[in-house]
Amino acid sequence: MRLLSQSRRLRQTPFSEGVEDKGVTAYTVYNRMLLPTVFESVEADYRHLKSHVQVWDVSCERQIELNGPDASRLMRRLTPRNLEKMQDDQCYYVPIVDENGGMLNDPVAIKHSEDRWWISIADSDLLLWIKGLAVGAGMDVRVFEPDVSPLAVQGPKSDDLMARVFGKEVLDIRFFRYKRLAFQDTNFVVARSGYSKQGGYEIYLENGAYGMPLWNALFEAGADLNVRPGCPNLIERIEGGLLSYGNDMTIENSPLECGLGKFCKPGVDSDHIGMQALARETEVGPTRQIRAISIPGDPVPPARSAWPLFKEGKRVGQVTSAAWSPDFETNVAIGMVDTGHWGAGTKLEVQTPVGERAAEVQSAFWK
Amino acid sequence: MRLLSQSRRLRQTPFSEGVEDKGVTAYTVYNRMLLPTVFESVEADYRHLKSHVQVWDVSCERQIELNGPDASRLMRRLTPRNLEKMQDDQCYYVPIVDENGGMLNDPVAIKHSEDRWWISIADSDLLLWIKGLAVGAGMDVRVFEPDVSPLAVQGPKSDDLMARVFGKEVLDIRFFRYKRLAFQDTNFVVARSGYSKQGGYEIYLENGAYGMPLWNALFEAGADLNVRPGCPNLIERIEGGLLSYGNDMTIENSPLECGLGKFCKPGVDSDHIGMQALARETEVGPTRQIRAISIPGDPVPPARSAWPLFKEGKRVGQVTSAAWSPDFETNVAIGMVDTGHWGAGTKLEVQTPVGERAAEVQSAFWK
Repeated sequence: MRLLSQSRRLRQTPFSEGVEDKGVTAYTVYNRMLLPTVFESVEADYRHLKSHVQVWDVSCERQIELNGPDASRLMRRLTPRNLEKMQDDQCYYVPIVDENGGMLNDPVAIKHSEDRWWISIADSDLLLWIKGLAVGAGMDVRVFEPDVSPLAVQGPKSDDLMARVFGKEVLDIRFFRYKRLAFQDTNFVVARSGYSKQGGYEIYLENGAYGMPLWNALFEAGADLNVRPGCPNLIERIEGGLLSYGNDMTIENSPLECGLGKFCKPGVDSDHIGMQALARETEVGPTRQIRAISIPGDPVPPARSAWPLFKEGKRVGQVTSAAWSPDFETNVAIGMVDTGHWGAGTKLEVQTPVGERAAEVQSAFWK
Repeated sequence: MRLLSQSRRLRQTPFSEGVEDKGVTAYTVYNRMLLPTVFESVEADYRHLKSHVQVWDVSCERQIELNGPDASRLMRRLTPRNLEKMQDDQCYYVPIVDENGGMLNDPVAIKHSEDRWWISIADSDLLLWIKGLAVGAGMDVRVFEPDVSPLAVQGPKSDDLMARVFGKEVLDIRFFRYKRLAFQDTNFVVARSGYSKQGGYEIYLENGAYGMPLWNALFEAGADLNVRPGCPNLIERIEGGLLSYGNDMTIENSPLECGLGKFCKPGVDSDHIGMQALARETEVGPTRQIRAISIPGDPVPPARSAWPLFKEGKRVGQVTSAAWSPDFETNVAIGMVDTGHWGAGTKLEVQTPVGERAAEVQSAFWK
């Protein structure tokens, strides 16, 4: 591994002081912001995440605020997902597509009211797309990045820790819903959500000055729960089938290819930008699709680029994320496989940096 | 320094194999792509850049292609710079601003013809802004990222090396002009430009498959010129006053604040998006502006965040880039200083990670 040269351009977060103090080992860069990737080791962090509770600095999930009379109209232009029944305390996973139906981002939208939304983004400057559309079409809406930095609390003991800091009210929050809960002299949006399958919450810190007080409050309250700093874990997220924009899908892929067809059933009031492109693809079906893939045998290194998948010498797809899973004793992987080869049990070959290996399409991700 | 965790999301380049083979020490991430930052050491790389010739993998200067009947009209919407006299073989430095006059990027535009442009971008997903505007306004133009990866040749021996690989014709290229020159069975746009003050060229590699052949050809031809791999050098670029988007300026800054007022004199046919905002600011003048700043005394570390500048306890600006200069025997820095305090010779204090230090506004960058 190489070193990371830091500069102001790779933005620090309201929690960076805590993250560094607790011995972060490695970072990635996400939305031009630092995202921790390793504390003790990827394997040790994984084991701890599945057993205890972790606090994650996911400030890099930047928010885009849509604020004004045209906010909801703009939301309907952005996503193929039907937003008609969405309540004011709901979070929706919303694929965002361009005019060709290509994925630009796969964020979570948080609805405050018809006039005010946050979009909690994956790794692309979606702010520029949304501002460009709004300015180009002359819409009456302000689009900007507010001072909001999510902090995630993840792991089986999340409920215990969160109830100690935010009160038992936190336990009533349903999956992908949120409440505004008090902290010191302010309050935050707290949602039951997060980029792991171990359960937990995301706290949308407003005003960076509360960052270290919140960080410290969680660590103080959780000492006997073995709380530790953590981060999205490569092994756990692949086991759980959590896709990573930029890794498992790019602008070259449609949401149907990503297995997100269920989020592409627009409401009658929809005029989303990729409508025509996606309608055509829905009729004929995607030509390739995301699949869980196992690579038996010795551990493979992380995928720094796409690894080609072959069937009897013919290229039929690629693996984009891979990791050795201690719990399932195989390499777990995410890939995109061509139609005709994506059925569960299909045996393929994958070209990895450690040589050609056997691979097998799975019926589902690992649970 | 921490480690960088790599994944497909932090894209490799057509030259990555060569960069790794030649022992890159550290990277940054720029446009979601790897950009080398250190080979031997920042100081050794600096000394070599000023004495010999270096080959830089600046693939991260991604291109955005505007292709179609509305390409030039869209360009005029994007930038306050007057494009009326621009020839088909010219490169222009073009600030790109949003509807508030805030900087979104400071790219170089390469004009192929009225219907076809490339924009060689700094670190933001400008593709999304341009596509959003075009789609929102229903313009007849395709906007996409072509398979183009710039490779820079920089340093006082650049002419020698380039003439050996591309022929003496390369020497006729004037500053910020380009020619299409042959390489093997193809040809590339070759411009006299680059992110240093040591002279040199940028080769716009089309088709990544030619990446390693081009890399190898340059190193083979330049063995006796002491050619080495290099990268934009922190010390040299601060000495030369080369601004870095995301470091020295952000969406919070106008081009006038960045000292780019001379590029904000739009032609009569201009209807650029920030027109109203910049016209107001041009009347009253900017309230702060980029300045060269010296920080005498012992070397300071690189700026990982903005360092506040004070005058007698009152905050009057910030330093955003800083490095010890062996040639000028002081810390050279770039900062933004409030009106009333930006005059040459003004003495200020700066809060650095190694304590408060004296700072002085300079009349110009270092030459």
